Amino acid sequence: MKTKRFILQENELPRQWYNIQADMVNKPLPLLHPGTKEPLKPEDLYPIFAEELSRQELNQTDSFIDIPEPVLEKYTYYRSTPLVRAYGLEKALDTPAHIYFKNESVSPVGSHKLNSALAQAYYCKMEGVKNITTETGAGQWGTALSYAASVFGLDAAVYQVKISYEQKPYRRSVMQVFGAQVTPSPSMSTRAGKDILTVNPNYQGSLGTAISEAVELAQMTPDCKYTLGSVLSHVTLHQTIIGLEAEKQMEMAGEYPDVVIACFGGGSNFGGISFPFMRHNILDGKKTRFIAAEPASCPKLTKGKFEYDFGDETGYTPLLPMFTLGHKFSPANIHAGGLRYHGAGVIVSQLLKDGYMEATDIEQLDSFKAGCLFAKAEGIVPAPESCHAIAATINEAMKCKESGESKVLLFNLSGHGLMDMSAYDQYLAGDLVNFSYNG
Amino acid sequence: MKTKRFILQENELPRQWYNIQADMVNKPLPLLHPGTKEPLKPEDLYPIFAEELSRQELNQTDSFIDIPEPVLEKYTYYRSTPLVRAYGLEKALDTPAHIYFKNESVSPVGSHKLNSALAQAYYCKMEGVKNITTETGAGQWGTALSYAASVFGLDAAVYQVKISYEQKPYRRSVMQVFGAQVTPSPSMSTRAGKDILTVNPNYQGSLGTAISEAVELAQMTPDCKYTLGSVLSHVTLHQTIIGLEAEKQMEMAGEYPDVVIACFGGGSNFGGISFPFMRHNILDGKKTRFIAAEPASCPKLTKGKFEYDFGDETGYTPLLPMFTLGHKFSPANIHAGGLRYHGAGVIVSQLLKDGYMEATDIEQLDSFKAGCLFAKAEGIVPAPESCHAIAATINEAMKCKESGESKVLLFNLSGHGLMDMSAYDQYLAGDLVNFSYNG
Repeated sequence: MKTKRFILQENELPRQWYNIQADMVNKPLPLLHPGTKEPLKPEDLYPIFAEELSRQELNQTDSFIDIPEPVLEKYTYYRSTPLVRAYGLEKALDTPAHIYFKNESVSPVGSHKLNSALAQAYYCKMEGVKNITTETGAGQWGTALSYAASVFGLDAAVYQVKISYEQKPYRRSVMQVFGAQVTPSPSMSTRAGKDILTVNPNYQGSLGTAISEAVELAQMTPDCKYTLGSVLSHVTLHQTIIGLEAEKQMEMAGEYPDVVIACFGGGSNFGGISFPFMRHNILDGKKTRFIAAEPASCPKLTKGKFEYDFGDETGYTPLLPMFTLGHKFSPANIHAGGLRYHGAGVIVSQLLKDGYMEATDIEQLDSFKAGCLFAKAEGIVPAPESCHAIAATINEAMKCKESGESKVLLFNLSGHGLMDMSAYDQYLAGDLVNFSYNG
Repeated sequence: MKTKRFILQENELPRQWYNIQADMVNKPLPLLHPGTKEPLKPEDLYPIFAEELSRQELNQTDSFIDIPEPVLEKYTYYRSTPLVRAYGLEKALDTPAHIYFKNESVSPVGSHKLNSALAQAYYCKMEGVKNITTETGAGQWGTALSYAASVFGLDAAVYQVKISYEQKPYRRSVMQVFGAQVTPSPSMSTRAGKDILTVNPNYQGSLGTAISEAVELAQMTPDCKYTLGSVLSHVTLHQTIIGLEAEKQMEMAGEYPDVVIACFGGGSNFGGISFPFMRHNILDGKKTRFIAAEPASCPKLTKGKFEYDFGDETGYTPLLPMFTLGHKFSPANIHAGGLRYHGAGVIVSQLLKDGYMEATDIEQLDSFKAGCLFAKAEGIVPAPESCHAIAATINEAMKCKESGESKVLLFNLSGHGLMDMSAYDQYLAGDLVNFSYNG
């Protein structure tokens, strides 16, 4: 019998995260203060983020950072996640490629987001914080943060992008079961939300807007910090647990990836699985390819500009050197809510600029077609975001079929789509469309 | 660091199912032919079920039955499921009890049902069957069967109890993603459905009715067999993979359960986790207690009669010697759709009669209260069915708190509740009620 799943025992779990900033040939350009335009120091971030997270954000010297014991203990609730050989998908495609996926959907909250949520909630708790705020698109990050807050005894306030709040009401329910307060964004509870609703009362929201609201609430509330589910370097740092595990698991499988693929919203899922392997490209001369799969309607990596821009709609955040479609860009209402973001993290942006990785565009209909094929072949209904990674993987597998090459492909199944079935309903009924990008 | 999760490697997986019928002191009474009232032989079941499944149903001699290699291979997609020490729940309850749960919710379809669905689809395929029919309550069995049919290249037709079809539309979507045809029951597509709708046009359906429809379709269609998600002995046989794994995993944890608990609909989930441990009560003098947790509104074990009764509403099935509320019993519209069934499997019924196990009633509101507590403590939103097991476990844990005993409690988390969030919404809003039993 061929081995299908590879799982690490508890004593084999990585005990450190990997900080690729320390190994990068060209470091990311500095973040700039939104007011003074001066390079940021960690202290400048303290009013918004926990201090340790602020230091991690700007740490360009330590390649590995210890995972605190209480976080590691919570990781053991669901980690290691399985590395799975997708024999079913290979057969369905009739490809000689060896396809593996890292199954983050088995996390208790259904996605990889918990890896950073637990870390962020822990550091906040340690520093005496009582409340944490955040935004969420598809709801996966909000769910993870709500649970992590409950684990460490914090109150959580989540601004959920209105389009997702309406498309996915049950995500809200899960957050509420975990005890969080959930508000659709834009809302009238913040100045940022009021300003946007005044101009456009029917605005369906975006991650950029929801970030403005959550940051504003954190700034206005005592003992309150803001947390973020992607984009920032410390979030990606925490997500490297995915790739570090995958590295050991690929070794169990006796293979090494030729191509690593992940969907791309802000970059933490992509960086999480990629950076531990990219390390060997940088340091050991490996030639693995890394492909970020973004929605064709929100193509910051393939059609954006590399420049300083804000992380949010209103302009509360530091200026980030990144590939961006502009912080006023309003993404189309695709179902992959987690990918509806105008910019890319600063590390990924620099790596793309320097040629360490590639990006590809996926149309919405192609993403769901890939998702349905995967569901039938592997039994897991993937999140709309993850469908983008699957579509990109299928493209590579079909190239292998043409060339006859048995390349090893590894993608991250960032989450399941069981809360997104209305989107699948629409796809199966023929009611979904593609959205073009008019940049 | 305390170990939280115990997982078997692929080479440690059980390779046989456990057939408790062979070890029972008092064997179950024979099933009777619905027409002749004669004891059934396997051949009598061939028109409805695959032949191998019919033989397994009546096998009272072989204690262990080999799991076919192709089924075992599919099991490795998600098995072993984790055995988890519920430290979070223990802390929340402040109990000295050691609480473990077997996490079947990580199955690709979200519940334990896949364990039997794969086996049944496989045997049907081997015997040249092209179509399989079934009923589903909450939708968990229908989802599992739809995926299993897709795995083995069969067409699936699923009758979903109308109340669940309406309460949980996204279960239907998942079945459709897997390629199944889903019909709300009662429907006008069968004589059984028509007869019921004629008398009661607004009938919300029950498992008993849906079984009648699925059996009728199987009888009327060439190359078609019927499959069932619980109640029958061969279904429970396949589910013993849960308890057989748990036995090895409890050994890894260095403990042995004092109490084993599962929710109870037809008995396959309960028998699945219990029977491998009960074996040691029968053969080795162990004194483990086994508790079946059923809904207070559908209390066949605690308030039903032990007698011969039909498995379905219309009377198509063999007569089964079982604890039953009567096959015309119409269960209240609780959200735990998988527990809305009038009878108990024949093995469990005999074991209850003989004192090898106990049963307890759980009110709907208590079940959701327990589910929310568990979700906050362990991060997993449990299925409404599983909430009954959790409530019963909490009751036992609180007794331990009173007595100061560190008993080892093991329950089966049969599935997650991510498709049942409307029920949680109603609970959190205070809109749910208890239903009394008026037998």
